[in-house]
Amino acid sequence: MKLGELAQRLGCALRGDGDVDVRRVAGIAEAGAGDLTFVASARYAAQLQTTGASAVIVAPGLETPLPSLVSDNPYLTFARAVSVLHPDPPPAPGVHPSATVDPTAELGEGVHVGPQAVVGPGVRVGARTVLHPQVVLYRGVRVGADCLLHSGVQVRERCVLGDRVIVQNGAVIGADGFGFAKDQDGRYRKIPQVGIVVIEDDVEIGALTAIDRAALHETRIGRGAKLDNLVQVGHSVTIGADSVLAGQVGIAGSTKVGERVTLAGQVGVAGHLTIGDGVIATAQTGIPGSVDAGRLVSGYPAIDNRDWLKASAVFAKLPELRHRLRDIERRLDELARRR
Amino acid sequence: MKLGELAQRLGCALRGDGDVDVRRVAGIAEAGAGDLTFVASARYAAQLQTTGASAVIVAPGLETPLPSLVSDNPYLTFARAVSVLHPDPPPAPGVHPSATVDPTAELGEGVHVGPQAVVGPGVRVGARTVLHPQVVLYRGVRVGADCLLHSGVQVRERCVLGDRVIVQNGAVIGADGFGFAKDQDGRYRKIPQVGIVVIEDDVEIGALTAIDRAALHETRIGRGAKLDNLVQVGHSVTIGADSVLAGQVGIAGSTKVGERVTLAGQVGVAGHLTIGDGVIATAQTGIPGSVDAGRLVSGYPAIDNRDWLKASAVFAKLPELRHRLRDIERRLDELARRR
Amino acid sequence: MKLGELAQRLGCALRGDGDVDVRRVAGIAEAGAGDLTFVASARYAAQLQTTGASAVIVAPGLETPLPSLVSDNPYLTFARAVSVLHPDPPPAPGVHPSATVDPTAELGEGVHVGPQAVVGPGVRVGARTVLHPQVVLYRGVRVGADCLLHSGVQVRERCVLGDRVIVQNGAVIGADGFGFAKDQDGRYRKIPQVGIVVIEDDVEIGALTAIDRAALHETRIGRGAKLDNLVQVGHSVTIGADSVLAGQVGIAGSTKVGERVTLAGQVGVAGHLTIGDGVIATAQTGIPGSVDAGRLVSGYPAIDNRDWLKASAVFAKLPELRHRLRDIERRLDELARRR
Repeated sequence: MKLGELAQRLGCALRGDGDVDVRRVAGIAEAGAGDLTFVASARYAAQLQTTGASAVIVAPGLETPLPSLVSDNPYLTFARAVSVLHPDPPPAPGVHPSATVDPTAELGEGVHVGPQAVVGPGVRVGARTVLHPQVVLYRGVRVGADCLLHSGVQVRERCVLGDRVIVQNGAVIGADGFGFAKDQDGRYRKIPQVGIVVIEDDVEIGALTAIDRAALHETRIGRGAKLDNLVQVGHSVTIGADSVLAGQVGIAGSTKVGERVTLAGQVGVAGHLTIGDGVIATAQTGIPGSVDAGRLVSGYPAIDNRDWLKASAVFAKLPELRHRLRDIERRLDELARRR
Repeated sequence: MKLGELAQRLGCALRGDGDVDVRRVAGIAEAGAGDLTFVASARYAAQLQTTGASAVIVAPGLETPLPSLVSDNPYLTFARAVSVLHPDPPPAPGVHPSATVDPTAELGEGVHVGPQAVVGPGVRVGARTVLHPQVVLYRGVRVGADCLLHSGVQVRERCVLGDRVIVQNGAVIGADGFGFAKDQDGRYRKIPQVGIVVIEDDVEIGALTAIDRAALHETRIGRGAKLDNLVQVGHSVTIGADSVLAGQVGIAGSTKVGERVTLAGQVGVAGHLTIGDGVIATAQTGIPGSVDAGRLVSGYPAIDNRDWLKASAVFAKLPELRHRLRDIERRLDELARRR
Repeated sequence: MKLGELAQRLGCALRGDGDVDVRRVAGIAEAGAGDLTFVASARYAAQLQTTGASAVIVAPGLETPLPSLVSDNPYLTFARAVSVLHPDPPPAPGVHPSATVDPTAELGEGVHVGPQAVVGPGVRVGARTVLHPQVVLYRGVRVGADCLLHSGVQVRERCVLGDRVIVQNGAVIGADGFGFAKDQDGRYRKIPQVGIVVIEDDVEIGALTAIDRAALHETRIGRGAKLDNLVQVGHSVTIGADSVLAGQVGIAGSTKVGERVTLAGQVGVAGHLTIGDGVIATAQTGIPGSVDAGRLVSGYPAIDNRDWLKASAVFAKLPELRHRLRDIERRLDELARRR
């Protein structure tokens, strides 16, 4: 594709030669002839001197002799360029003969059901949704339109997915929550988990992530939220719209996570808490109590990020501090003796 | 169902109108007409004033104008009420035509084998056990009676499950343990893992949890233990009866966990340790050494919970402490100079 | 098998009676008549007095009355003895009739495709590779020779596996990386992930481990690396040869891990870092910045292991330290008042 044509399709200003051919996208270090790359931050601007790319997406302020697409949000424009240059045509509509689709299931127009997928009784699947091989939808599941469920995804009975939901391989939606009551002998008796999981529109769920069904009502993942791989979401948890949970995050039951929250990798959140809108927790943070909106927290147990950074710096010097403390005590004792 | 009839079935005393109809269970906040709710702790008693529930399960000491079932253990009674009001009839016995069952496998009376399940040579499955779609049982596996294995569960060769075991979706039982020996070139050579996993009666295993087979003998999960999602149990580990492992807990090889142990979310336990009966570790605790029975531990590395709480409180003030230390040194120097 | 014959096959010196029969391997505590055991470290030498084993593999310096195989590396010799005494014959070549193999896929000589495996268009599988039940290979995947993919493994489009790669159950190779760009409304837009994953020769991947495909180029797991269960490897990460990642380790996107690196259980590594060759991180370490080759690090945030051990020891005494600090201040105030 000519760079000029791509500029038009992406709605970007063009700088330099619009006749240059771009065939694929590539990172600035690996890019060669025919490649379009991008510079999202000034940090990488120096690499523009050495890249083999044929063209580049840049922010308005960045000068380069390379033919360029100018964008206020180079990363976003790049994402759209990938879709244009690497179109990913969906699998053809239809049900593979090896799939097991219950006769009471309703499949919308253009739905693709891959090999050995299992669609249970009473399931409804919206138009153009793709079920890759070996997806399992238990009875009564509802999946919206234009969803993409990768192979090995399991959705348990009666759970509900909105439109344009993407689920990566092996994720489990709606397994039983972890609920047990102790009996008189100290043994645990299972609390039947009769609630469901609701996944709103435009959510993406990572590979091998588990979102448990509620004991009674619902676990809910809000519109546009993005969950990475191997995340654990306990029963009756609510995740607000546009929140981001990185890999291996765990959230215990009944906690309410607000909107636009960011939990970095391996963060753990205890149960029955409220995490306010816009909260950010850095990697491995352990959150034992509710957190007010807008706070940036770190550490275990979580404290203000700035305090944690300072305290962590002192932590490494604790042996020295103890040594100084002993010195002081000795000097004071000496003073006392002399009196 | 009339509340009076439910009282009889659950063996509870009835207070108030036994003719009220209860059709389902619900949380105290969401409950409406026809719903039965419960109050397990006095904390929620205030909500009894505003709930829309038609009836409630309460402890003997709790007064309420609502028609009530009185129970010494409201949570447990509630669990049983869920089973009565939301019966979950098991799938019909029989083998789905798309399943692959080896002719040498033995299926007990009333077993259900769902679509595309795979039952290998020499497998034995006890009466009334349910294998949901795409369960895979490798050769020689034994599963007891009245078990429930959800879709996507994999059980590797020769592993043994007792009676009434529940396994949530995608769990892997009996994958190879992580055992390698370094050769003269510093490369790792695989130690074949020829042991098995034994899961005793009444255990529940969460979604996407991995329990590795032993190198030589067995990995064992004791009677009634409950493992949440995304838990990692290394080879040759033993978990005692009635222990509880919350989400994302990891236990390294050959560690022995006692009975009635509670490991909260994301706890990590090193290998070759002994964790005594009744130990509790709070969330994210890292356990590098053996822990005596009955202790409550926290932190990384794990220490007594009370000590950890106090030390953590001081941790946040470390910068201030260092500042005070400097002040003291200055004052001492000043004193010394004056002499 | 006679011990003398086994000695020959393993290339070990024999001590004592070569006519003793050994039929299987066992741990030193469980071993009985007919069992071969081993002592890899002097720590277990005392158990040689009480073991019921018929023979033992020992290092040259270790004296025992038991018939013995003498080896400089008893653990490695033991691993080889397991293979000899417990041969694990591969499943018979051929494609199970319930598998779905695209007509454009190429299967090498002796390949086994188990029940309900799915092999997509254009896939190539090398000689003697075993695909257990329900393995899914998306279109364009290449798998080398002598690989072993256990049930439930998912390999996404165009990913490449070398020779002798072992993948445990339920692992996901090549799911989309976690890449999103914020648009003007603060919503996340997906960055299409058009790269792949490359797994080099002799790698082993644990159960339920997720290795994400690169956004643009490749995620690469180096020759001989061993990944345990429930590990998360982000997009565009590189793992060097012979590195070992224990259970539940997480590595964020674009980080380069060197060769012979050891990351113990639950370690987290932030994105865009360089971890030098031979680095060791102890369990639960959180690594926020690059680490030079050869270092041993611990803690969160990671510091030198020795410093961390010392600081952690002081941490538990922080309340006492604060108390002493207050005492000192009081004494100084007292001194000041007296002047």
